[in-house]
Amino acid sequence: MSEIKKKRVLSGNRPTGPSHLGHLFGVHDFWVSLQDKYDCFFFIADYHALTTSYDKVEMIQDNIREVTLDLLGAGLDPKKSTIFLQSDIPEVAELNLLISMVTPMGLLERNPTYKAQMQELNIKKPNLGLFQYPVIQTVDIVIYKGEYVPVGKDQLPHVWIAADIAKTFRHRYGDIFPIPEELVGEFPNVPGSDNRKMSKSYGNTIDVRDDEETTFKKIKKFYTDPEKIRIDDPGHPDGCPIFYFHTMVSGKEHCDNVKSECESGKRGCVQCKSEMCENLNNHLKPIRERRTEFARNPDEVDKILLEGGLKAREEAQKTVQAARKAMGLTERSRLIQTPTIKYKFIK
Amino acid sequence: MSEIKKKRVLSGNRPTGPSHLGHLFGVHDFWVSLQDKYDCFFFIADYHALTTSYDKVEMIQDNIREVTLDLLGAGLDPKKSTIFLQSDIPEVAELNLLISMVTPMGLLERNPTYKAQMQELNIKKPNLGLFQYPVIQTVDIVIYKGEYVPVGKDQLPHVWIAADIAKTFRHRYGDIFPIPEELVGEFPNVPGSDNRKMSKSYGNTIDVRDDEETTFKKIKKFYTDPEKIRIDDPGHPDGCPIFYFHTMVSGKEHCDNVKSECESGKRGCVQCKSEMCENLNNHLKPIRERRTEFARNPDEVDKILLEGGLKAREEAQKTVQAARKAMGLTERSRLIQTPTIKYKFIK
Repeated sequence: MSEIKKKRVLSGNRPTGPSHLGHLFGVHDFWVSLQDKYDCFFFIADYHALTTSYDKVEMIQDNIREVTLDLLGAGLDPKKSTIFLQSDIPEVAELNLLISMVTPMGLLERNPTYKAQMQELNIKKPNLGLFQYPVIQTVDIVIYKGEYVPVGKDQLPHVWIAADIAKTFRHRYGDIFPIPEELVGEFPNVPGSDNRKMSKSYGNTIDVRDDEETTFKKIKKFYTDPEKIRIDDPGHPDGCPIFYFHTMVSGKEHCDNVKSECESGKRGCVQCKSEMCENLNNHLKPIRERRTEFARNPDEVDKILLEGGLKAREEAQKTVQAARKAMGLTERSRLIQTPTIKYKFIK
Repeated sequence: MSEIKKKRVLSGNRPTGPSHLGHLFGVHDFWVSLQDKYDCFFFIADYHALTTSYDKVEMIQDNIREVTLDLLGAGLDPKKSTIFLQSDIPEVAELNLLISMVTPMGLLERNPTYKAQMQELNIKKPNLGLFQYPVIQTVDIVIYKGEYVPVGKDQLPHVWIAADIAKTFRHRYGDIFPIPEELVGEFPNVPGSDNRKMSKSYGNTIDVRDDEETTFKKIKKFYTDPEKIRIDDPGHPDGCPIFYFHTMVSGKEHCDNVKSECESGKRGCVQCKSEMCENLNNHLKPIRERRTEFARNPDEVDKILLEGGLKAREEAQKTVQAARKAMGLTERSRLIQTPTIKYKFIK
């Protein structure tokens, strides 16, 4: 019985800071869950980071390192997935230029994400890099012939615009790559300490790299039901971030108990936090241990990115070669490196 | 006495069709005149061709060949100048992406050339490639550390916008490359058969690759002074394309004669055309012979582009490396080919 070829999944993570539990429960766990069923390519999107962090470039190298450790800690397995650094594949920039030739300005001007991001980051004078973001994003998928992009429901427009750009190109130059589709996950919308969505910009995060004590201190300061002042006041677990965390780390049965105890005034918030935090720290323990282990072995991490990059680059070169040919350009092998590229490690 | 380092000149020619005499007298001759005084880099701009010819890609390879022959025929000398194919330097695409991160949208939206080109080519729905043209154009100069760009007066805005984009980048990331300046030539504005500017889109051209007979036939159909019907009618040489050609190919003294004979009704248009055409064909003879010689030796042409490309690419890699570093990205040598790239010929 011949093995059925796995469908290819593509996704990236911008290195704009250390990952928090919103990333872990919201995105990374989903990625990890896809590793067996799909042929997964996951990358650290350092070119992308420049679309908004071009004025904070001194942080990028650190952030790349932290995010890579976060991903490996979360359980991305280089034996199963191709893990690499976006800008290690310069072909991304070339396909970006080629696809831009047939990407209508109107399509980018109507991009709702562009306007939302300008508003969110209070950008008055946008740069071309931000404006053409959807093209690079499309390239990131199609250059590796990605078929599925794991997203949360609120990110669906990202995939749709990528599909539109890919279709425009294919319509003119043939089916060099598949049209990407979404793979919608049930992403938990993890709350932060102030009960708003966990986000670095709100300063309400617990980072994956935080230790158990820091986690405990942060949890202690988490928002709880303001109507529950004394232990025997009845609480409202459904709007409580601590209860939300319980549902992620404490198991169904225990959660049912927590809920009924809280609602009937049989459980105090201090006890509830401390209990949940123990479960959370237990849940994070293997993740943190893996992370620490990788942090102790930078050479190993470098090797993972290098090998992932080599594999990704080989795919990318094939796609760019085909795109160049379809667009009438000279065959790349005429002047560029041959397929047996010489790579070298640099410490 | 140490040799003073020559300033670097950069310019490119889009391969959108065979060159006509407007290109030759208007641009190529100027380039040829710069070869001794400057360190010249001249390229065939095939990426650029895609900004407007993305729907006629089947012509690009032929056009690259024709334009290369036209340039070599005109007298560009690979021993003096670096002659290469733009898209043989994929670093152009990468620097384009990097520079786009800090290029304000407003600067591109206000670009007068963009609007003019949309109007001229009747483009209703522009693509991103056309819109971001000034960025690629800037990259083409700065990636080779170009100091001067030879232009006609009407092309000055091209250099100004490139300088603006280069300044924006340098302002943030340091002086990785010089700010390009213009080198304004006294370009003749060569008239075509209908006395409008010679241009492919007007169908009024004489191509460099045309033979003597074709040239003669085309000249015979050239516009002449409509008020000069009979030989002894006094003519108006100053508005006559044939007289314009005389000034380019017949020498000062003879031109003075032509002028006074024409104005005093002592010279007929038929004789005048035939005389001028002989001078024109004589002028073009060595150019056409060189062109034919190169056309017979495609391997030689390939070698010129290859060697030019190698030299240009080495420069480009240094600039991209420096730009990546300044923007916080990983040092390229980590994953990309080492400086000793393996190139290979492909027939």
